[in-house]
Amino acid sequence: MKSICGVEGVTATGIKEGRYGLALVRAEGEAAGVFTSNLMKAPPIRLMQERVRDGRLSAVMVNSGCANAYTGQRGYEDALSMAEIGAKALRVPAGEVGVASTGVIGRYLDLPLIRDQCGRIASRLERSEQAEVLAARAIMTTDLTEKHALVQREGFAVGGICKGSGMIAPNMGTMIALIYTDAAVPAPLLQKELRTAAGRTFNRVVVDGDMSTNDIALCTATGRAGKVDAKEFTVALEECCRMLAVQIAADGEGATRLLEVTVTGAPAEEDASTVARTVVASPLVKTAVYGADPNWGRVIAAAGRAGVDFDPDHVNLWMGDGTARIPLVSDGAIVVDLAKAKALMQGKKVVFFLDLASGKAEATAWGCDLTEKYVEINGRYTT
Amino acid sequence: MKSICGVEGVTATGIKEGRYGLALVRAEGEAAGVFTSNLMKAPPIRLMQERVRDGRLSAVMVNSGCANAYTGQRGYEDALSMAEIGAKALRVPAGEVGVASTGVIGRYLDLPLIRDQCGRIASRLERSEQAEVLAARAIMTTDLTEKHALVQREGFAVGGICKGSGMIAPNMGTMIALIYTDAAVPAPLLQKELRTAAGRTFNRVVVDGDMSTNDIALCTATGRAGKVDAKEFTVALEECCRMLAVQIAADGEGATRLLEVTVTGAPAEEDASTVARTVVASPLVKTAVYGADPNWGRVIAAAGRAGVDFDPDHVNLWMGDGTARIPLVSDGAIVVDLAKAKALMQGKKVVFFLDLASGKAEATAWGCDLTEKYVEINGRYTT
Repeated sequence: MKSICGVEGVTATGIKEGRYGLALVRAEGEAAGVFTSNLMKAPPIRLMQERVRDGRLSAVMVNSGCANAYTGQRGYEDALSMAEIGAKALRVPAGEVGVASTGVIGRYLDLPLIRDQCGRIASRLERSEQAEVLAARAIMTTDLTEKHALVQREGFAVGGICKGSGMIAPNMGTMIALIYTDAAVPAPLLQKELRTAAGRTFNRVVVDGDMSTNDIALCTATGRAGKVDAKEFTVALEECCRMLAVQIAADGEGATRLLEVTVTGAPAEEDASTVARTVVASPLVKTAVYGADPNWGRVIAAAGRAGVDFDPDHVNLWMGDGTARIPLVSDGAIVVDLAKAKALMQGKKVVFFLDLASGKAEATAWGCDLTEKYVEINGRYTT
Repeated sequence: MKSICGVEGVTATGIKEGRYGLALVRAEGEAAGVFTSNLMKAPPIRLMQERVRDGRLSAVMVNSGCANAYTGQRGYEDALSMAEIGAKALRVPAGEVGVASTGVIGRYLDLPLIRDQCGRIASRLERSEQAEVLAARAIMTTDLTEKHALVQREGFAVGGICKGSGMIAPNMGTMIALIYTDAAVPAPLLQKELRTAAGRTFNRVVVDGDMSTNDIALCTATGRAGKVDAKEFTVALEECCRMLAVQIAADGEGATRLLEVTVTGAPAEEDASTVARTVVASPLVKTAVYGADPNWGRVIAAAGRAGVDFDPDHVNLWMGDGTARIPLVSDGAIVVDLAKAKALMQGKKVVFFLDLASGKAEATAWGCDLTEKYVEINGRYTT
């Protein structure tokens, strides 16, 4: 297995017809969710915020092609109807069906299509690699690759699928992550753990804490593996979320390279995170990465405007490709070997390590380069 | 006259040789300045922050081609030397010479070249349209057009030149504005007025309050026109700054269209400004403007994540080209006529009017579209 079907108690399936897809995942258990902080919340998000408070889900269904966003009261009722369609097909209480939508905004859900697709695939739910791949593909929109993560530990597993590829700040490319574990974790603790893990992973890709109208990450704990070590679960959940987050960054619209920025020597983790996200979001850094230009000045200047206090004249900066790394700036002095640095930027991954020399905290953020292709994709979206 | 030479008591000149230019402006009087808020401040900025506290300038010199940024203590001494070169050539006290630099960062000033250029042009200072054009051209870097503004009022004038064209957030394309007035305004008041005007104009182009390592706006009041009505001066200064700010936005790197966003119905001006700047900075809005796509959803979604409280389901949104305007969203309902809206987006200017329906304050921000050309320019800067 590659992802959710590696978790005990989870079955899945999916269908994709043109731009319209539907994924079904059946898994009963304690549940938690984190949601977009955008004021313009799509109706399914509002519904799920209420539903997650009950702390229990039996199934999740996600449609792609229509975001059911900016659709008002009718959109909310449509989200309810979508959950009822799933409940009937899977024979579970409608109140325990999670729903999420992604796609074009300002249009109503095509409920007859969703009913038809759901009816055709509900009987195909199974626990297999093929099934989790079908589900992961069904939720893709502008994604070029399906996204899976599976973290296996002694006695339990955490697995997830996700979609998302609009990766420049501000991000409007909806991120949807469905995460499962067979560890027994009570809903309130699961909620706390998911919030922390998402803060350190998804929210460091979707820069500026900026999320679309439909962003959602749901986690269901089936409990089939029984109680597990709390610390081990925390680490495993964060690792699963990070694996998914990195895949979203690498699949950024038009991206040719993954950009990873690790900030160390910060006064607090929040400071490190702010600086890392600011650098990763900088169009000038992103275009430099695209052009394989080891532009240390743009990195330090982006850090300098992040609102965190440090002395730019005493920072250390390295650059790497995920394996090797070389110094660019050492205690404020420029030490870059331009030819070597350029050579290190030719691969699929560029990593900056920035030591602020102002403390002991650190954080990592992920993004991608900014290319002509991004402009092309987003300049011609509705036309 | 088009700009600074329309102000009594101002003479100017400039020279541009390849990428290296030098502008000289001679004008004695009370002086004020606003500076980049980036922690990574170039040495000439640090020098000018000290010098402006004295409240008096007799001349300003600006070199282009080298930003004298990230150059440490030697950079600071070089900035002092540059001022001394100007002081000697113009026979004014070195402490009353303002200096600013723009260009490549991480390199030392070429002082012999600056001394040579200064020596050759100092005797050519004059009050003429040709002179102000030479000065405006001398400070250009990636700018495609020279930038002038002149506001004439009964009895006094405010004029300025500026450079700047790196226009996407985060902006690293240095903005330098030299503003002059013949109104008699004491330095402390001038400082206050300049800060307010810059906050409403330059800081609404250079989005997120985000400025480069070298951004500076200086204003000198020669007093030749004597005392003027305080309110009239405030309005004239802001108008001059706005005229310059709009030219910077329109000359954004790779831009094909000026983007103007006016937010009304906000609880406070600061809120309106935050929302307007967030919309103007949104890559998705910018690419939509490039693609002539009347994407109301991206505008409202960008507003929704600005951190200002309003109800997205009750906003009003219009779009125009600077003359005509048509509604896109009315009290939360989508009312756009797509064909008409697309037709309105074919010109050099696209304006969005967003009424948050949550108060009485308003603000305007300026930017430009995001094009493949921007990526090309910034992806191949040092290579």
